[in-house]
Amino acid sequence: MEKISCDVLVIGGGPAGGVSAVTAKMNYPEKEILVIREFEKQLVPCAIPYIFGETLGSSEKDVGSCGAAKEMGISTLLGQVKDIDFTGKIAFTNNEAIHFDKLIFATGSKPFVHESLRHSLVLDGVFTVAKNKELIDKAKDYIDTKTDIVVVGTGFIGVEMAMELASVGKKVTMISGSTHILKGAFDAEIAVQAENILLNAGINFIGNDRVYEIIDKNGDNIVNAVKLKSGKIVDTDVVILATGYKPNTELAQKVGLHLGDYGGIWVDEYMRTANHDIFAVGDCSSRRAFITKTASKVMLASTSSAEGRVAGSALYGIQYIKGFSGTISIFSTMVGNIAFSSAGVTEDEAIESGMDVVVGTFSGVNRHPATIPGAQKQYVKLIATRHGGQIIGGQIVGGNETGEMINIVGLMIEMGLSVYKVMSMQVATQPMLTAAPTNYPIVMAAIMAMKKIEA
Amino acid sequence: MEKISCDVLVIGGGPAGGVSAVTAKMNYPEKEILVIREFEKQLVPCAIPYIFGETLGSSEKDVGSCGAAKEMGISTLLGQVKDIDFTGKIAFTNNEAIHFDKLIFATGSKPFVHESLRHSLVLDGVFTVAKNKELIDKAKDYIDTKTDIVVVGTGFIGVEMAMELASVGKKVTMISGSTHILKGAFDAEIAVQAENILLNAGINFIGNDRVYEIIDKNGDNIVNAVKLKSGKIVDTDVVILATGYKPNTELAQKVGLHLGDYGGIWVDEYMRTANHDIFAVGDCSSRRAFITKTASKVMLASTSSAEGRVAGSALYGIQYIKGFSGTISIFSTMVGNIAFSSAGVTEDEAIESGMDVVVGTFSGVNRHPATIPGAQKQYVKLIATRHGGQIIGGQIVGGNETGEMINIVGLMIEMGLSVYKVMSMQVATQPMLTAAPTNYPIVMAAIMAMKKIEA
Repeated sequence: MEKISCDVLVIGGGPAGGVSAVTAKMNYPEKEILVIREFEKQLVPCAIPYIFGETLGSSEKDVGSCGAAKEMGISTLLGQVKDIDFTGKIAFTNNEAIHFDKLIFATGSKPFVHESLRHSLVLDGVFTVAKNKELIDKAKDYIDTKTDIVVVGTGFIGVEMAMELASVGKKVTMISGSTHILKGAFDAEIAVQAENILLNAGINFIGNDRVYEIIDKNGDNIVNAVKLKSGKIVDTDVVILATGYKPNTELAQKVGLHLGDYGGIWVDEYMRTANHDIFAVGDCSSRRAFITKTASKVMLASTSSAEGRVAGSALYGIQYIKGFSGTISIFSTMVGNIAFSSAGVTEDEAIESGMDVVVGTFSGVNRHPATIPGAQKQYVKLIATRHGGQIIGGQIVGGNETGEMINIVGLMIEMGLSVYKVMSMQVATQPMLTAAPTNYPIVMAAIMAMKKIEA
Repeated sequence: MEKISCDVLVIGGGPAGGVSAVTAKMNYPEKEILVIREFEKQLVPCAIPYIFGETLGSSEKDVGSCGAAKEMGISTLLGQVKDIDFTGKIAFTNNEAIHFDKLIFATGSKPFVHESLRHSLVLDGVFTVAKNKELIDKAKDYIDTKTDIVVVGTGFIGVEMAMELASVGKKVTMISGSTHILKGAFDAEIAVQAENILLNAGINFIGNDRVYEIIDKNGDNIVNAVKLKSGKIVDTDVVILATGYKPNTELAQKVGLHLGDYGGIWVDEYMRTANHDIFAVGDCSSRRAFITKTASKVMLASTSSAEGRVAGSALYGIQYIKGFSGTISIFSTMVGNIAFSSAGVTEDEAIESGMDVVVGTFSGVNRHPATIPGAQKQYVKLIATRHGGQIIGGQIVGGNETGEMINIVGLMIEMGLSVYKVMSMQVATQPMLTAAPTNYPIVMAAIMAMKKIEA
């Protein structure tokens, strides 16, 4: 068994692991940082759906670069940690004994499949959206030869998969346990706008139902249909299970780390386990929501990256006070040529959490005047506490500038800004790039919320 | 003389006046609000350059809507206030005596032309970029029949005019007193990127020079050339003087209001003159810079709108504490298909102001992975104080998402955020809409600035 030594060992080469390593090297340039990862070619997770349409068209175009890791002097090793001796500070692969001083778990997440359907994963034509190039290539090759596709699950990955597949002529049916798609990120009136785009793209949507059974009519190990709880049977060549992800904690469990909510590795605010030499970041760690402070299932590469920055600078003592406490849940996506984005809590979630809130909305246009070619409608909804007007959520629909606009709302939430403060905020506006200064939609929505408080 | 009565009289129907009126009506629904303005059709000021190319192509497409003013019950009157009796609270037009309780000056700005060139404004072919439909129509009709254009001044309006005119085949020469275009908003290394786009669009740029004389060779009142201080003579059919704007304070001066820096009406933080029944907002008011606290010449419809919101809610006592103190100077524009944006101070300005600063920069791509179709380079530069790392300026070059990204930086500046706080901020990232989560450029630039502080 080969003996390897490093100061900081990072298990996992996804966004959380990569950012942890880079941040660690920046903060402690004299330390040896080693990243161990399973695959030579690591997919950029959020772009996997675009492999299936013409946007990327191939997994080769979705391979993440190692960024500056190599030039920075970060070492990488292909392999899989099988066991850890915490006392001796040694991680074992099949061939190596890696001595470390600090250890960061960044083992990510794996597709979640409901127990009742797991046995059907062996059927030809049944796939998950795994963050694994080999499995994605297999799925893509199979799907390329087929026409009828069922996508189970209507979160971001499910919706993006459905749209990409429809764009290359597949006949897609989406199945959701909820009334609306993108639940958790959008309130119904906004989700409906996205649903209409799906319908116009020829995608069939079955809501409030769930897959009861995946059927292999001929007993030949090839999927033919899905049977729903409602009794409906949908014939299909392919079933894609986009039913979420679960923390990948096989190793963590084996070595006895304490798990927190939803099965993630328990960590404190600085991403430390109870043993301060052992950290966990990204999807494999347990999280709570920024506003409601309840356990959160939300998995986002952007939040994972933020966690990597926290861990990477807290390895040898806390250098910087962490700027956030919980996952804000900031999402964005394109559905057709319309961008949908969300930050913080939805109105529904706020009410369910027992919060007393007001909502301010504003409909405008993303260019000014509206005669600027390519101008699109823009809609902003802000959710604020009735007492004090603190902004706790926002949803924006519009052109592709929406992807950065939601980051303005995210920052407002992170900073605890109130609608009173936002009322007079200064912004840049330009005819070709933004809405009008007189009707800048985030400010206008804040004013509308303010008026509700004072009504 | 007709007698009219209102509670709040707003003089001027541009962005500042319009927002003041709407905000006043929202805050004081029982009050009569009257806006008096000079023109039936008011141009959207920032989009005037786009009238001259194919983007809008006609001033009719750049006419601002009155928004919700009419439906909200705000009255408007066409006319011009000629005198004011502050004691009796009456404003006089040629035909009306308007009794008011509160008065808001929103008389805007007028093109500034250097004294030495003012006499040449009578020549055919010499134009300013006036916020006046009739004058713009006249300029456009004239320019449409000509080929050679000289644009004097290389601020945002000058650059946008030059690009639009070049896009419809005009032979454009830009003349600037500075070494680089867009001075004040961008540091040299970024301005150069915009200059290269201008050059590639066939625009000639003469820097470090200035127009000494506008020449009418044949004495027929038609411009033929400009003579520069360097001795150069540039033959031309048209001269567009885009040399900035000055506060329109003719009326304010006549009625004896105190003027502040750069000739704007002096106002306190709540946009009140010394007489708390009289307010001034927008370009006609005097301003200071948010960071340096020195007098500011920057005129932006977005800041004017923010001022209108402040004034409109402080008419009958201060309802909301103002969220900003000074003009942040947030700009954005498109040069070709590249967006350039800036907020706060530039590195040059910071150094000239005697500030001890660090700079963090990051070059990335505005989509992820970079293979996403249409991905463009993205460059972020942040300027922060060396002591404490407070973010005081930012410049971004990239795709059209840049127009909203700079508003994230603007909010950071307004809130006094430090690079230490930004290091771990949460953002939304999505392949089709933003840079990668691992390399989100605002966060990366903040980290780079942090490292400089600690180097």
